[in-house]
Amino acid sequence: MKAAVIAAPKAPWEIRDVPTPEPGPGEVLVRVRACGVCHNDVWTAQGVFPFPSFSPAITGHEAAGEVVALGPGVTGRRVGDRVGTTWVQETCGRCGYCRRNLPLTGQSGMNCAESVMTGLNTQGGHAEYVCVKAASTVLLPDGLDYTTAAPVLCAGYTAWSALRAARPQPGERVAVLGVGGLGHMAVQYSRACGFDTVAITGSPDKHELALGLGARAVVANGTELREAGGADVVLVTGISYRSAADALQGLLPGGRIVLAAIDPNDSFTVGPASAFWSMRQQVIGATHDGLRYLTEALDLVARGAVTPVHEVFAKEDVAEAVSRTAAGDVRFRAVVTY
Amino acid sequence: MKAAVIAAPKAPWEIRDVPTPEPGPGEVLVRVRACGVCHNDVWTAQGVFPFPSFSPAITGHEAAGEVVALGPGVTGRRVGDRVGTTWVQETCGRCGYCRRNLPLTGQSGMNCAESVMTGLNTQGGHAEYVCVKAASTVLLPDGLDYTTAAPVLCAGYTAWSALRAARPQPGERVAVLGVGGLGHMAVQYSRACGFDTVAITGSPDKHELALGLGARAVVANGTELREAGGADVVLVTGISYRSAADALQGLLPGGRIVLAAIDPNDSFTVGPASAFWSMRQQVIGATHDGLRYLTEALDLVARGAVTPVHEVFAKEDVAEAVSRTAAGDVRFRAVVTY
Amino acid sequence: MKAAVIAAPKAPWEIRDVPTPEPGPGEVLVRVRACGVCHNDVWTAQGVFPFPSFSPAITGHEAAGEVVALGPGVTGRRVGDRVGTTWVQETCGRCGYCRRNLPLTGQSGMNCAESVMTGLNTQGGHAEYVCVKAASTVLLPDGLDYTTAAPVLCAGYTAWSALRAARPQPGERVAVLGVGGLGHMAVQYSRACGFDTVAITGSPDKHELALGLGARAVVANGTELREAGGADVVLVTGISYRSAADALQGLLPGGRIVLAAIDPNDSFTVGPASAFWSMRQQVIGATHDGLRYLTEALDLVARGAVTPVHEVFAKEDVAEAVSRTAAGDVRFRAVVTY
Amino acid sequence: MKAAVIAAPKAPWEIRDVPTPEPGPGEVLVRVRACGVCHNDVWTAQGVFPFPSFSPAITGHEAAGEVVALGPGVTGRRVGDRVGTTWVQETCGRCGYCRRNLPLTGQSGMNCAESVMTGLNTQGGHAEYVCVKAASTVLLPDGLDYTTAAPVLCAGYTAWSALRAARPQPGERVAVLGVGGLGHMAVQYSRACGFDTVAITGSPDKHELALGLGARAVVANGTELREAGGADVVLVTGISYRSAADALQGLLPGGRIVLAAIDPNDSFTVGPASAFWSMRQQVIGATHDGLRYLTEALDLVARGAVTPVHEVFAKEDVAEAVSRTAAGDVRFRAVVTY
Repeated sequence: MKAAVIAAPKAPWEIRDVPTPEPGPGEVLVRVRACGVCHNDVWTAQGVFPFPSFSPAITGHEAAGEVVALGPGVTGRRVGDRVGTTWVQETCGRCGYCRRNLPLTGQSGMNCAESVMTGLNTQGGHAEYVCVKAASTVLLPDGLDYTTAAPVLCAGYTAWSALRAARPQPGERVAVLGVGGLGHMAVQYSRACGFDTVAITGSPDKHELALGLGARAVVANGTELREAGGADVVLVTGISYRSAADALQGLLPGGRIVLAAIDPNDSFTVGPASAFWSMRQQVIGATHDGLRYLTEALDLVARGAVTPVHEVFAKEDVAEAVSRTAAGDVRFRAVVTY
Repeated sequence: MKAAVIAAPKAPWEIRDVPTPEPGPGEVLVRVRACGVCHNDVWTAQGVFPFPSFSPAITGHEAAGEVVALGPGVTGRRVGDRVGTTWVQETCGRCGYCRRNLPLTGQSGMNCAESVMTGLNTQGGHAEYVCVKAASTVLLPDGLDYTTAAPVLCAGYTAWSALRAARPQPGERVAVLGVGGLGHMAVQYSRACGFDTVAITGSPDKHELALGLGARAVVANGTELREAGGADVVLVTGISYRSAADALQGLLPGGRIVLAAIDPNDSFTVGPASAFWSMRQQVIGATHDGLRYLTEALDLVARGAVTPVHEVFAKEDVAEAVSRTAAGDVRFRAVVTY
Repeated sequence: MKAAVIAAPKAPWEIRDVPTPEPGPGEVLVRVRACGVCHNDVWTAQGVFPFPSFSPAITGHEAAGEVVALGPGVTGRRVGDRVGTTWVQETCGRCGYCRRNLPLTGQSGMNCAESVMTGLNTQGGHAEYVCVKAASTVLLPDGLDYTTAAPVLCAGYTAWSALRAARPQPGERVAVLGVGGLGHMAVQYSRACGFDTVAITGSPDKHELALGLGARAVVANGTELREAGGADVVLVTGISYRSAADALQGLLPGGRIVLAAIDPNDSFTVGPASAFWSMRQQVIGATHDGLRYLTEALDLVARGAVTPVHEVFAKEDVAEAVSRTAAGDVRFRAVVTY
Repeated sequence: MKAAVIAAPKAPWEIRDVPTPEPGPGEVLVRVRACGVCHNDVWTAQGVFPFPSFSPAITGHEAAGEVVALGPGVTGRRVGDRVGTTWVQETCGRCGYCRRNLPLTGQSGMNCAESVMTGLNTQGGHAEYVCVKAASTVLLPDGLDYTTAAPVLCAGYTAWSALRAARPQPGERVAVLGVGGLGHMAVQYSRACGFDTVAITGSPDKHELALGLGARAVVANGTELREAGGADVVLVTGISYRSAADALQGLLPGGRIVLAAIDPNDSFTVGPASAFWSMRQQVIGATHDGLRYLTEALDLVARGAVTPVHEVFAKEDVAEAVSRTAAGDVRFRAVVTY
């Protein structure tokens, strides 16, 4: 099969012929039709994250396609199923984390140390075929095309999990900090669920976009958010902790600020703490939180309530897709077809 | 009446004769029998917090006593009622905060800017008599004596609100950081509610005490907490943000750390943030959260499940009670009788 | 002042001259501009509920108007404030219920036996003036006219409390059983909050109305609801327990059915119970649940997201308003101006 | 291997030699050491529930033992693991229910119609060996013996899920209706979690037992419960709907009554409904609710906080174990060793 192979850390991605994998017990073989380029792919390829532990190195955890073969023992998927893949395929099932939360809700090495993670320690989806654990796949809703589905499998899933983690109540106001890969979906998810939604962005050129996505208003920072009435929920979708801390200025009493994406080496400061506790506010960490949420995220897209903004690249242009993603020059997700 | 008057910021408290107040509409006159010395009283007296805006300056919001007179329109209290007072007597009823949360759950100037706060902008409880809004009082449970009740009215109320804010689930493990004024009550409240309770303290001399209060184990810091299995909930009851941030090391995935008391000028840092969100943890700000919680906190003390450790001072010794509180030399609350 | 007086049980309401009340401590005098006719008013007037215990008998708890005088001790309201009144003005403050929930969230004699209830044991709002406890009033949002506000003060408040009691999650589907006084508002509240909303009604003539109010679909009963995909939440707004029990057929696993209005003498049966617990469903009782919810309900109307359908009657026509309400012949609320 | 075979509906169970099964993909072969006799086993054997669809008919879903062989693709279990089995081994993974809730939290045919259910449509645990899906097993805590673990795998799991479903808050009072197979564990679980626990039983001979299990008080019915102060939570563990409906008399405002076990053909009536909604009460259906809960339930037993009362039978006496269970003559679970 053809696959996007990364020969060495920082090397450009190349389409090469590699052996087509065969599904083991509990696995399905997926004919990938589209796979999104996540920033984690870029960091993995650059060695910021651990470089793939298998060879040839193929990343990608936003793969959508159809099931073409079943490994032994698979009952929940059939040949012909249209599926999406996820980042964590399986966890160890026996550590403290796994005993408390069930394998499939595990998300990262922070939790179960033995996670099987697509594109990190097992082949990823930037290829014509990928084998994944059947139980880690989701059935795509009817009518949802593969290229549109791909960005939902990580970016949309994260945005939706962040909104859900905030426990927003009917009638509350939600502010979304950042109008990029996650943020442009968070704005839409919030709006689709009826929340009065405000976008926070320091980029004036994104105002019109944010309004078009459903934001009722756009503000530049936490102070402006407060002046505009504040928010019950702030979803932090960008990677700067400085603007995240600033956003606290606009958080209402009882409000919750959700950290869903932030520079992995950075920290987040609440201060002065006395205002935080006097106002009974909360900081909530969020990430992919179970396949139910992913299915919900996909359903809202299938219903047309949310539309990921993405650019489609042929597999021959995968290197360009990656370099433009690395440069922050894609609106808002590069999706490669295979 | 006799009252503990603070002539000027940083001046020692003196027992003086001052006019006995008369209850206005909606108020009750309370014959104070005991009033705790809260650190906020000390900070107010020293001018760290705004010095009282009325004269003579009398602080104190942990007053317990009996109702001896009713102002016009009071229906919910009767002469002879044994009551406790609270810090916030009333809020404005018309600001954004008040319109959303109901006046009596307001807690501080951070929320409603026009709060009537006992001992801060209206006479406090370090006196033989105090007038307070009837609706801000709680009925003391039968059999609970005044000196034992007093420390519950702020310290116990805070500890209990912190535990409740953590939304602890049956079977979870709760760690309490600090075994002082709040912490020694938090350990007991947690234990009384069946939670496997661990104390975190850097003071070896407090180990025995913590075990006696119901902790199953005592650890020195977050690393030791993690090695001991971690905790689902960490209640931060001390005022050092450094040990609070360190305690995150022992917080389990899905865990919540509650900030209930921390140096008001300090901040709290979560970092690196990626671990925090990967583990879906939360930081929760907590403070007094409504009279229902205060009643619950008192009931557990009345049932003997929790016992505030305190020292009783005659009113003539109020200055000593205050200076020892300021020096951190009271185990764990000075209660002055009037 | 002029007031709608009920001379005896079942007697027609008459506009008479009666003394204008004067506000006592903690009370405000409201110049009523509009007051809705609630079914409870009808039942009270007919003696189904206890006939008013005061004289002259004046019912009505959906009064909106402006404050024209303050009783002693009122700080939270000012002359000129535009306010709405509520059914429960005050509770005793000392019974088991009051000690646990705070007075103002009390709702009925089922809870605190000593409630002061507008129009039941103290003068109601069908008059030019009414005195009510200041703390039981809500400030009306700017721009919301009195006649539109009136039906929100009980009917809208109930519908919103029911939706909130269901703890609906983002993306869930809400079914509303009944498209009448409560139901037509519940459909709108649900839709305004982004929930996929389905109306259940056995009246084909209400289909178009329901769709116009924002329902995505209309079904005739629980079986049809199930065939249409089911619902996570069913709000029972009608008074027939038979259709309510039938609606369970369309409740999804994990679903909640909320009883907000049902014949007071009737019962509700879950059966066979095994399906109910296998599917982990819930039956939730709901009613007015605190002034925060009432304010939220009013705000959504003020923003134009929800519009109560009502008919306005001059006070001279109050008897007609009542008789048509009794006959179920008003769409959907009679509001009388004073 | 030896197994307890049911030759025909209502026939006595017999120990026979049958072929030892071999683990398929994703399965483990368990050497059963102990298996509890659940009432569902009895009903299945008697044909009240569908008689097993496979041959020879072997029921039992409370099996504990050690893993002796792994089928292909199993990574989460190892030979030598001490495990417990569950009722639902797998669901279809593709129906509406499965797409929303994840397979392993499925519980019964009411939800996913294609569930693989131990002892109902695949061989159960009343045998020396059983093959089960690895992902449906739980690791037993160290030190917990097999005969003690067995009753937790269904009965204890149900009791704990019921308590959790009630969302009990710290300091609340829990009443347990029935002191039998589920009830005697529910009393202990509630007490172990610090809840003030009251037992409701009409059998005076069980009073001492209930007190010994940790109940603070024992009452005969809902009226007595109310007179004793009422309860925030009532867990219905018996199978009579009449006493369940009666228990509502003792449910406090805001209280929740949980139906965890009740005659499958019976119904449950709330009435009059007006009291139910005025008091904002809830009826909650509960059943096994995910392996996390089962692990929690086991951990509390392993820690000695809860002790299932059971009688151990050699496999040769399985028929007696079953007949005594059918007669309600076991305290409180028959556990058969294999």
